[in-house]
Amino acid sequence: GQILFTFLHLAAAPRAARGLLARRVTALAYEAVETPSRRLPILEPMSRIAGRLAVHQAAALLAWHAGGKGILLGGAAGVPPAEVLVLGAGTVGRTAACLARAMGARVTVVDKDPERLQALHDLLGPAAVTLSPHPDLVAHAVARADAVIGAVLVRGARAPRVVTPDMVRSMEPGSVIVDVAVDQGGCVATTRPTTHAEPVFRRHGVLHYAVPNMPAAAPRTASRALAEAVFPYLLELAENGLDAALEARPDLARALVLRDGRVPHPVVARALGRGAAAE
Amino acid sequence: GQILFTFLHLAAAPRAARGLLARRVTALAYEAVETPSRRLPILEPMSRIAGRLAVHQAAALLAWHAGGKGILLGGAAGVPPAEVLVLGAGTVGRTAACLARAMGARVTVVDKDPERLQALHDLLGPAAVTLSPHPDLVAHAVARADAVIGAVLVRGARAPRVVTPDMVRSMEPGSVIVDVAVDQGGCVATTRPTTHAEPVFRRHGVLHYAVPNMPAAAPRTASRALAEAVFPYLLELAENGLDAALEARPDLARALVLRDGRVPHPVVARALGRGAAAE
Amino acid sequence: GQILFTFLHLAAAPRAARGLLARRVTALAYEAVETPSRRLPILEPMSRIAGRLAVHQAAALLAWHAGGKGILLGGAAGVPPAEVLVLGAGTVGRTAACLARAMGARVTVVDKDPERLQALHDLLGPAAVTLSPHPDLVAHAVARADAVIGAVLVRGARAPRVVTPDMVRSMEPGSVIVDVAVDQGGCVATTRPTTHAEPVFRRHGVLHYAVPNMPAAAPRTASRALAEAVFPYLLELAENGLDAALEARPDLARALVLRDGRVPHPVVARALGRGAAAE
Amino acid sequence: GQILFTFLHLAAAPRAARGLLARRVTALAYEAVETPSRRLPILEPMSRIAGRLAVHQAAALLAWHAGGKGILLGGAAGVPPAEVLVLGAGTVGRTAACLARAMGARVTVVDKDPERLQALHDLLGPAAVTLSPHPDLVAHAVARADAVIGAVLVRGARAPRVVTPDMVRSMEPGSVIVDVAVDQGGCVATTRPTTHAEPVFRRHGVLHYAVPNMPAAAPRTASRALAEAVFPYLLELAENGLDAALEARPDLARALVLRDGRVPHPVVARALGRGAAAE
Amino acid sequence: GQILFTFLHLAAAPRAARGLLARRVTALAYEAVETPSRRLPILEPMSRIAGRLAVHQAAALLAWHAGGKGILLGGAAGVPPAEVLVLGAGTVGRTAACLARAMGARVTVVDKDPERLQALHDLLGPAAVTLSPHPDLVAHAVARADAVIGAVLVRGARAPRVVTPDMVRSMEPGSVIVDVAVDQGGCVATTRPTTHAEPVFRRHGVLHYAVPNMPAAAPRTASRALAEAVFPYLLELAENGLDAALEARPDLARALVLRDGRVPHPVVARALGRGAAAE
Amino acid sequence: GQILFTFLHLAAAPRAARGLLARRVTALAYEAVETPSRRLPILEPMSRIAGRLAVHQAAALLAWHAGGKGILLGGAAGVPPAEVLVLGAGTVGRTAACLARAMGARVTVVDKDPERLQALHDLLGPAAVTLSPHPDLVAHAVARADAVIGAVLVRGARAPRVVTPDMVRSMEPGSVIVDVAVDQGGCVATTRPTTHAEPVFRRHGVLHYAVPNMPAAAPRTASRALAEAVFPYLLELAENGLDAALEARPDLARALVLRDGRVPHPVVARALGRGAAAE
Repeated sequence: GQILFTFLHLAAAPRAARGLLARRVTALAYEAVETPSRRLPILEPMSRIAGRLAVHQAAALLAWHAGGKGILLGGAAGVPPAEVLVLGAGTVGRTAACLARAMGARVTVVDKDPERLQALHDLLGPAAVTLSPHPDLVAHAVARADAVIGAVLVRGARAPRVVTPDMVRSMEPGSVIVDVAVDQGGCVATTRPTTHAEPVFRRHGVLHYAVPNMPAAAPRTASRALAEAVFPYLLELAENGLDAALEARPDLARALVLRDGRVPHPVVARALGRGAAAE
Repeated sequence: GQILFTFLHLAAAPRAARGLLARRVTALAYEAVETPSRRLPILEPMSRIAGRLAVHQAAALLAWHAGGKGILLGGAAGVPPAEVLVLGAGTVGRTAACLARAMGARVTVVDKDPERLQALHDLLGPAAVTLSPHPDLVAHAVARADAVIGAVLVRGARAPRVVTPDMVRSMEPGSVIVDVAVDQGGCVATTRPTTHAEPVFRRHGVLHYAVPNMPAAAPRTASRALAEAVFPYLLELAENGLDAALEARPDLARALVLRDGRVPHPVVARALGRGAAAE
Repeated sequence: GQILFTFLHLAAAPRAARGLLARRVTALAYEAVETPSRRLPILEPMSRIAGRLAVHQAAALLAWHAGGKGILLGGAAGVPPAEVLVLGAGTVGRTAACLARAMGARVTVVDKDPERLQALHDLLGPAAVTLSPHPDLVAHAVARADAVIGAVLVRGARAPRVVTPDMVRSMEPGSVIVDVAVDQGGCVATTRPTTHAEPVFRRHGVLHYAVPNMPAAAPRTASRALAEAVFPYLLELAENGLDAALEARPDLARALVLRDGRVPHPVVARALGRGAAAE
Repeated sequence: GQILFTFLHLAAAPRAARGLLARRVTALAYEAVETPSRRLPILEPMSRIAGRLAVHQAAALLAWHAGGKGILLGGAAGVPPAEVLVLGAGTVGRTAACLARAMGARVTVVDKDPERLQALHDLLGPAAVTLSPHPDLVAHAVARADAVIGAVLVRGARAPRVVTPDMVRSMEPGSVIVDVAVDQGGCVATTRPTTHAEPVFRRHGVLHYAVPNMPAAAPRTASRALAEAVFPYLLELAENGLDAALEARPDLARALVLRDGRVPHPVVARALGRGAAAE
Repeated sequence: GQILFTFLHLAAAPRAARGLLARRVTALAYEAVETPSRRLPILEPMSRIAGRLAVHQAAALLAWHAGGKGILLGGAAGVPPAEVLVLGAGTVGRTAACLARAMGARVTVVDKDPERLQALHDLLGPAAVTLSPHPDLVAHAVARADAVIGAVLVRGARAPRVVTPDMVRSMEPGSVIVDVAVDQGGCVATTRPTTHAEPVFRRHGVLHYAVPNMPAAAPRTASRALAEAVFPYLLELAENGLDAALEARPDLARALVLRDGRVPHPVVARALGRGAAAE
Repeated sequence: GQILFTFLHLAAAPRAARGLLARRVTALAYEAVETPSRRLPILEPMSRIAGRLAVHQAAALLAWHAGGKGILLGGAAGVPPAEVLVLGAGTVGRTAACLARAMGARVTVVDKDPERLQALHDLLGPAAVTLSPHPDLVAHAVARADAVIGAVLVRGARAPRVVTPDMVRSMEPGSVIVDVAVDQGGCVATTRPTTHAEPVFRRHGVLHYAVPNMPAAAPRTASRALAEAVFPYLLELAENGLDAALEARPDLARALVLRDGRVPHPVVARALGRGAAAE
């Protein structure tokens, strides 16, 4: 009679899903909590932390002793600031773009959604250029970038490979790529997952940072932010019980992955194949 | 017994100077009022107005029907803003750079004084790049600029020609040059003085605006600002008389050009030749 | 089997509409793409460009040699800035108000929607006053304004004449009116459409600028911004075909004006009269 | 052999001065510490506190139950903010103007020094108008003001009466005057000193707040700020002794009022009359 | 045949409700106008005014002669600013937090809605800390606060008592509590309603301000803001009649409390008991 | 006949100094170029770079995998930001404080100069607290800090040890100290110089970063900024020769360390002992 409420990613773990299904576990997935306006209230705080950490990393890796170009994000009087290219203007990308500008960098943001670009155009002013992801625009921007932050994430799908190996080759030696999308396969063709123990590798002269689950680098901030995000749902569940909570909060209802041996979540159901249900 | 207190520019008008000298006129020149910290309290408000008008002009001339490129200073979402190059970071240049950024342009400022560059670096943040006037840096910046604002002014000397004809040729057709330094000969090699009636000409495909005394385009604002700047000196002269005023205010004393048939101002004296004095 | 996807304005062009209808053309109108939250994703970027250009124009026309008052939008130390009155707080008006403030003007914004006024009150702070359109408030504000920007647009209807001839007479000579609403008949009683070739006329001593399709003054910025706005819809149509696109995107579905000899768009249908359909 | 280092104001207290002189006391006056660039490092923090408190008071007195007009400094959407007139752009006035703007008021600042007006013009932007103190400009501004903050202070002299009784009569009932200059006689003709116990009186329908030593309303903040300002001088005196301290710090030397039965401070000496010295 | 459209609060006044019901009055309640996105367009402007006045009050009561700690909201150089704790991040709390920061205070905001905290985190930056209402966090924050602003309001219910008597006891003497929620019973256990005539009492050494209907302190601003908010609905009713207005505007329809002897508003109906209807 | 113009630090290198002296080298020291207003135009750009890098380092070392606390400088919604304590408000400290705030941290700045504190109070607002260096205030601030940036530099002297070992012990494990003053001996008692290869050590559970010559981590930015700063002096020397340059620029004259076998610079002369001169 217990409820599992945590990060589950069952679509990518069908064996585990079937086990839970067999035990008729009721499961709600953090990552699937989604408001009617398509916001992801539990994932977003994590994305913001990842976006900030991505810029911290870019700044640190551009240092000479880290193998980078030896430039400062904010430049100096008479010395142009670094060019930071942010791929994607979702929560990760927007947060990264804002912090990069606050640290003094020139920023270019690429996204296919004109409304998001408009929002960043208004927010960042002439310190940032907004672009749509036409391949030649991206190629030109990558070649000029000192740091690329990959933040193209497509819900429930592999991240598209927006940056090709040729584009990476066009970057100057000591440039930096931080691919936050590595959790979903990466949006840069040359990235492969690394670890917090060995977080960086060099390819075509360019430093790549691609540690999955980046927020783990700031575990205190992240775990507390997660607790804050989850708390209202826990309260709802504790005070009113599962049925009332699912009724009262459509965002929580959307997160119901398994119940009574059935798979109410369509994406997970599709992943498990037809007929998926406890016998 | 009257005192002439206005714009005089006698170094450039020796005949007029000799006439005044012969009549033993006492003359104080607006443009020569200068504080101990080398500020020019009467000229500066005019320079600020000129700096602002220069950006207004650049914005207007970039319009298609004015013969310009047909771009908007602030760009749009997905469309990069205009690149505005400001030559000189004195009062004119600093004012122009700030307004251009406020209107959404990307700004590059060139000056040979590192302290001024530092001040603009702090003031404008990553929306602006600051550069020293190495010829190749200037050439590169001119070639990329949609609008160039010439604001290189050297006190009491002809403006240096920072932009060569070749650099102008490198600009895209429909680009714009506003040369505020035209009063002192211009800092762009291809500029020649125009008039408010016929303010613009095209050279190498580039629109040139080079009207001397630009603040005359906003005469109400300019004349009132001038009155504000002059008033404290008039009050000093009216209340305390010339001698006390010259004693009390070293900035005014420095503006004394002619008195009792002599030429106390060294630059004007030099311009009039040795022995210049009323007989 | 081709799809017409462009600006159409068929309600105002019934003859053209009937011709297309007879040829059973499928037509989607840019101006009718509208999200469920009533945003107009293709029109809005054009409105932003128009709003910015309106302020550029006001600044240019206030210059003495353009026939204006000879004042500077931003004033000077000791000299009050210009008073800019913006009628309407939609996309055009909001953009214009923000730019006018950024250029140093004092701004008054009039709109009948309290929520929009609240948003501008928060955004602009004490540099702007927000007002509802009571005729006496408007009359008082017009009389004090150096520049009036007309941006009252009602969807699918003639713009209301918010400013009467008497109000225009109350303005000081050399004041400026830029009526962006001229495309829909103008929101100032004394405006009549002008052209980019002869954009300005003087009435009651006041300069009127009323060129329809203002964004054409910055065609490069505008056409690229338009392309950015349209692109996601083109992609949707190209990749998935018309039916799937209409299903997937309700904003696009709303733009379907003609199909298979029928007129699914209610406003156009009404304009064409009952029974409008290909026989 | 002890040194008196505190607020002294001996020019206004000749009897006390003579007593100290007779006892050959060495006295340094806080208010007379003055840097070569004419800054007053001990007085200024007090002036900043007074400037802030003046705006707090204006906001509180505009409330209906305090007898004021019943308006909010920051206005509301559709309701214009309060008009705050600040007389004087020294430390008190500049601080008050900035806080009034931050609280949402429209601000007009009057000062006779164009350089100070320029600084505030740059700092406050179009939320503030700067004016020089021509009587008709002041009269017009007073009549429109909801709150007037008097901050015209002339070093070592009575404050000039910038606001006449007629100007006060022209204000709307329930308007507010806070005269910070009351310590020096007030810069509003109708003010007379009040007390923290009975701080406000009404004259011509206008509320007047004129408590001398305003910082005493925030004694914890003020005393700590004073301690911070005084500390470096105390340290200098304690570590190096009087003679070395006077040598090392010209700002402290200027504060030496009495020493060895003599009166080295010229203003105090003049106040005590010729021959002032211990016999 | 007349329509009553004003603040009604009939759920709390069943006798009045029944009287109106018996006379078959049609009544629309200001406080019940609510948009589909749950905004309260008529209440919100009042809440903003209350939020601003709450900070004005806190600043005034912290003054020594008002019985407060004698500190300045904004501190001084070398002196920390006041700590202001805002309970609730709805319209009242958000407005109060922003103004407190603008006046120089350090701000902590507590709310149980993570999305609201995120919005304030973005808006206020590091000048503010955002917290969820865990009792120990609240207790710690109250103990450190110089001023607490109570702004926890639950729609249609008594405000929860977030601050206990023990927490109040833990505050330093001369601290201040402004409980804006007093209209709904107060969110601080020690508050009781006061009056504009006698607005403050001291409990446990802490000043309490708890006047219901705070906006009455700025009646001119408030009544005009109210008129602005109400006007669009009046216009709708006047131009189109009740039925069309209720159809066109769901926010107005939700405000229909009584009609034709029935009680269409569910909360009021519940308050009047079953069977409530005119016979 | 050549001139040595570079960083020299001869007071700390008497042997080298004597060698140069013997060879009658003319030497000008970068670090000794000083304007009449005591600014150090060549050192300051390096100090700004060091200040920025110090914050980059603090952000990086607070990460969990670097051995830090695992917190994010900017916190998150519901999670307080990091507390950064900056010791010293000179160029290094001011730059570090501004960047730390821009990255979202709460900042406390300690300096003994009230004027500098005032400048930062104005610049940073309530996001920063300014304090004077009373030992108990410092101790309290260190104990609460997540990161301490040591930037107390005294011209021509060893940095004072502002932070004692006990204070370091009071910090939480995983806190960070970046001691920029290590070039001058460090202002934290527990720091000792480290290298770019092995930049960090842990003491009392606290990470210490204390690499001398921090700008070497961004060598491209630093060397170009240095070139910009030095260039005007080189130009002066090249165009006008040493004598004219020393006459024209008092800042350069102050940097003359050795000439014609003499030691015109007083500090270096003192370091070399009396009689120092080439025989």
